[in-house]
Amino acid sequence: MTRTSLADMNCSFARAADVIGDKWALLIIRDAFYGVSRFAQFKRRLGVAPTVLTDRLETLCASGVLERYQPCVDVDRHAYRLTDAGRALFPIVVAFMQWGDEWISGPGNEPVRLSEKCSGRPIAAIQVTNEQGQPLASTEVTFEAGNGADAETRAAFERAST
Amino acid sequence: MTRTSLADMNCSFARAADVIGDKWALLIIRDAFYGVSRFAQFKRRLGVAPTVLTDRLETLCASGVLERYQPCVDVDRHAYRLTDAGRALFPIVVAFMQWGDEWISGPGNEPVRLSEKCSGRPIAAIQVTNEQGQPLASTEVTFEAGNGADAETRAAFERAST
Repeated sequence: MTRTSLADMNCSFARAADVIGDKWALLIIRDAFYGVSRFAQFKRRLGVAPTVLTDRLETLCASGVLERYQPCVDVDRHAYRLTDAGRALFPIVVAFMQWGDEWISGPGNEPVRLSEKCSGRPIAAIQVTNEQGQPLASTEVTFEAGNGADAETRAAFERAST
Repeated sequence: MTRTSLADMNCSFARAADVIGDKWALLIIRDAFYGVSRFAQFKRRLGVAPTVLTDRLETLCASGVLERYQPCVDVDRHAYRLTDAGRALFPIVVAFMQWGDEWISGPGNEPVRLSEKCSGRPIAAIQVTNEQGQPLASTEVTFEAGNGADAETRAAFERAST
């Protein structure tokens, strides 16, 4: 049987990918961090078809990543902004940008420079770390069934570890 | 004009999203970190249509994220594994998982638990930090034109800062 939705997978990665695993959704989120808020601005900056933009904005609002609001109380015009869940995507946005810098644009050829506002110094490379802040490679991390694992997930991890 | 590819955007985020901004590509990468390597394994685990799986595996190989290899020299059968560029996606995989844990599955209900292999302790939450390791919110980070910015990108950042 072919799967059509990832939301029912017993996996937080798949659940996240179901919401933001889409080129246009990701670019909308990037632009929201730049302060873009209006439909016409998104459309002009991204060069995306209006039907696609409408669909992705609606999906991101329904998923709780963006919310519609009315910037001027007197004017009946709405705009979009990141929710708390949306702002929590900041590490993902930076990690995408840094990976693209390193592996596609190439070091020294970064289109966008990210720096700490108060010091002007470049920000650090995003890393997986232990609680003491020491970087961990994927080979130093164990994946195992968590509290929210269903029977299938538990069985899969048990098979993998034997 | 409607844009059809992100690869020509002067933005490392868009270039990364062009390669991995797709649900199935992301799940294939997740599974590659779990050690999945063969077509039939990916197909069974993901429940994805074979045509879609073939397309995504080819795209990920062409983009340099995965590579085909022959696990047994004597057997004419190939498999897939992460390249250096693919392994560098580890922070993105963990960040997706942690975001899904926090905002979709919910704290205490994580299907998968990630821990440091040598200590058994949970890994830290992925964060954007400065060079000293202090966490930075999006409001504490400046985005500006970098060395690889084209005239359009420079103009956009100049407009935004005035």
